[in-house]
Amino acid sequence: MIISMYQASVPRFVNILGNLSNIIDKAQAHVDARKLDVATLTNYRLFPDMLPMTSQVQIACDAAKGVVARLAGVEIPVHEDNEHTLADLKARIAKTVAFIRTVTPGQIDGTEDKEIVITRHGKETRYNGMQFLLGHALPNFYFHVATAYNILRHNGVEIGKRDYLGNP
Amino acid sequence: MIISMYQASVPRFVNILGNLSNIIDKAQAHVDARKLDVATLTNYRLFPDMLPMTSQVQIACDAAKGVVARLAGVEIPVHEDNEHTLADLKARIAKTVAFIRTVTPGQIDGTEDKEIVITRHGKETRYNGMQFLLGHALPNFYFHVATAYNILRHNGVEIGKRDYLGNP
Repeated sequence: MIISMYQASVPRFVNILGNLSNIIDKAQAHVDARKLDVATLTNYRLFPDMLPMTSQVQIACDAAKGVVARLAGVEIPVHEDNEHTLADLKARIAKTVAFIRTVTPGQIDGTEDKEIVITRHGKETRYNGMQFLLGHALPNFYFHVATAYNILRHNGVEIGKRDYLGNP
Repeated sequence: MIISMYQASVPRFVNILGNLSNIIDKAQAHVDARKLDVATLTNYRLFPDMLPMTSQVQIACDAAKGVVARLAGVEIPVHEDNEHTLADLKARIAKTVAFIRTVTPGQIDGTEDKEIVITRHGKETRYNGMQFLLGHALPNFYFHVATAYNILRHNGVEIGKRDYLGNP
């Protein structure tokens, strides 16, 4: 086995997104057992100007599909941010994973020096492929998954780090 | 540039640990400006049975030095968990970074298939080097850095995701 741009991206996103989907199952069980309003979890923010749990999941999905599509040179699928329930968030994750799985090693390997241009607030930032994957997309992806986890954990959902890491 | 086990580890840990150190500077400024007891941050947990902020930083440091040492086949430096202040945590990060920087690409590259055995609670888990780095150590590292961030953010420290990502 040799490390490659594909190995460092697709299987990693697929594993952690699957784990996040399982974590959301535990959040659903928590809500059901206590007859809670699910919005108490999905709209929860760790601080008033932080993004709520729903956005954390959406952004994690977008980080994963964005880098995979950009490296492969295919169009980024547009997924509207219209999720309300935990089942909706699981569906968002499932369609993200389904897209990521369509991309092959042949489309991603060798993209270390590929120029990636990201426009934020009208300002362009240029990366090479490896820098974008390892230095931006992966830490950003893990940040939002961990923050979704922390929001649920803070609200008493019974999950542990093993649920986040899964079986790599 | 070609992705390698070194590129996927040492520069990534060094970057994010530096960002975490800068985030702790902002936490110190927050404490100083409000004349807070620093323990209100360092001992803070997002849930009673989660680990406090200090442990999140210690574990992030240990995840980084552990994987780098294991891949390189050198002894893991022992750093005692005896930090109390934010300055102590910055020193812990600094000595972790100093160790990581001593390891060269020649010591880490080509370790994709190296067997890594981790013993937890008396039970052995076996990984190959690539699986351990990409599937365990990196997501675990980012989890604890993001959780330290979330604890500080939840307590009103003025930081944003740019502080976490830094300049990759």
